Amino acid sequence: MLHALYLLGIAAFAASGVLAAHRAGMDPFGGLVLAFAAAISGGTLRDLVLGRHPLYWTHDWLLLTVIASVAVETMLHLRRRRTLPRRTLMVVDAVGLAVVTVIGARAAIDAHVTSVAVLILAVLTGVTGEVVRHVLCGEFPPLLLHEEVYATAALAGAAAYLALHTAGVPDTADIAVSAGLLFALRMATVFRDHHLPRLRHLAD
Amino acid sequence: MLHALYLLGIAAFAASGVLAAHRAGMDPFGGLVLAFAAAISGGTLRDLVLGRHPLYWTHDWLLLTVIASVAVETMLHLRRRRTLPRRTLMVVDAVGLAVVTVIGARAAIDAHVTSVAVLILAVLTGVTGEVVRHVLCGEFPPLLLHEEVYATAALAGAAAYLALHTAGVPDTADIAVSAGLLFALRMATVFRDHHLPRLRHLAD
Amino acid sequence: MLHALYLLGIAAFAASGVLAAHRAGMDPFGGLVLAFAAAISGGTLRDLVLGRHPLYWTHDWLLLTVIASVAVETMLHLRRRRTLPRRTLMVVDAVGLAVVTVIGARAAIDAHVTSVAVLILAVLTGVTGEVVRHVLCGEFPPLLLHEEVYATAALAGAAAYLALHTAGVPDTADIAVSAGLLFALRMATVFRDHHLPRLRHLAD
Repeated sequence: MLHALYLLGIAAFAASGVLAAHRAGMDPFGGLVLAFAAAISGGTLRDLVLGRHPLYWTHDWLLLTVIASVAVETMLHLRRRRTLPRRTLMVVDAVGLAVVTVIGARAAIDAHVTSVAVLILAVLTGVTGEVVRHVLCGEFPPLLLHEEVYATAALAGAAAYLALHTAGVPDTADIAVSAGLLFALRMATVFRDHHLPRLRHLAD
Repeated sequence: MLHALYLLGIAAFAASGVLAAHRAGMDPFGGLVLAFAAAISGGTLRDLVLGRHPLYWTHDWLLLTVIASVAVETMLHLRRRRTLPRRTLMVVDAVGLAVVTVIGARAAIDAHVTSVAVLILAVLTGVTGEVVRHVLCGEFPPLLLHEEVYATAALAGAAAYLALHTAGVPDTADIAVSAGLLFALRMATVFRDHHLPRLRHLAD
Repeated sequence: MLHALYLLGIAAFAASGVLAAHRAGMDPFGGLVLAFAAAISGGTLRDLVLGRHPLYWTHDWLLLTVIASVAVETMLHLRRRRTLPRRTLMVVDAVGLAVVTVIGARAAIDAHVTSVAVLILAVLTGVTGEVVRHVLCGEFPPLLLHEEVYATAALAGAAAYLALHTAGVPDTADIAVSAGLLFALRMATVFRDHHLPRLRHLAD
């Protein structure tokens, strides 16, 4: 069940990579590169920092097949429709962010690092794909750093998971609650256009 | 013989790093940084993912000496001539891409990862230097993702190597054929200005 | 004593990350992300290349607490004053660059890599934070590659440390002298506006 949710999250990241490639005027191969980069860069960075080898995606057929299929599907869809419903994508992407971040927190906890390091690694797992996508497309600064509550929601979800896990809440419940919270926070931003105040405005 | 070709490829990547630094108005030290970054970042990323330690360049005098010499030579040349023959550079760079990508595929196969992971790692080894070069110079999006068949040629060469190696073709032959194919594809693009259609145009 | 200097350097990098976030119009969370990214990315990259696990910051409470505190302090200061004295920051940042680079050289020497690799890793440790900061903020090209003697000073300091260490100078003395040299070089640039000639101008 968790693994199915995880694959859904990875699929959402792959689709958002293709969409970014489309906006930047890339060719289909660029779309494929961005799909893989957006989907696996976060987990790769986390596992490099934790020293977990072999990396999860180097021996997982299912994962890579899902990414490639979603990328091709998304490109075919773009060819027919020229656009993707932006809000639909945001919702699916938020599912991805929620699950991938919480799973990142779990992996960091299993490696017995400090609590602050757990939070850093969880956020890193969740948002690296977004940063890579923007850097490769030349869109600056990445949305996550600029205005949206993207990473703040990830941090809140990771903190909730860490608290529940430390408090001894059973495994499925802590994941469901913290991922749900993260998802809800992200959705509130997307649909109500909530922002944190900018540093510059705080100074006014 | 393969090692000599490999050094030629690394040298080409170093020269292209210096040229990019020149275009971006950097000082000589920036040129040196870009030469090393372009030459060793692809192999470094591959070996980090595969968990191969110690990294190949941390104990290889010859490799680093070649990179430094080529960087200095290229800067002296630029000082005399103000320019490098662009097509000459493209040819040498294509030799580099061909050899480095196929060697990347070989290293991934030796690590017993899945076939899709072999292709990802081979392309990663070949094209990371190009991406790093563009990111450090602020040229967006990287050419490889934008229009040229750069990465597509790398993927085709890696796939050819994987097929030949799996089919049991002897070691020197499979490398020569797949690197040759990759080089030919890249040259066809450079000299005939072939492109893949952009995602956006596919939608028209 | 060295550890205290090291923490000061990390703190300076954290403050410069927040300042960059402020210039780029980010929210407080972006400021926090940039503080951590600027402070720990250089050492992380070095330890990944050297294969040193677990990574130093994943088990170090003090380090992460210092970074978070400095980031919050800097944001509160910006809120009151709207600006940071640029030259003060440059001085503190130069202390950071000096200590972090020399410590990077020491870590590489301890890993028994070649001398050229020691220099590469030392410069990498010192300047990666600066590059990450600029990439995340979309400022191109990074100052270090463009005009300032930032990385050149780092290279000179690393080379001095390597020479003194190889010559058998006692541990505290070699660090003090080489870090002092690096700091002085950097200060000369900041206050006298010295530059190396650009590659392009060398060609005139």
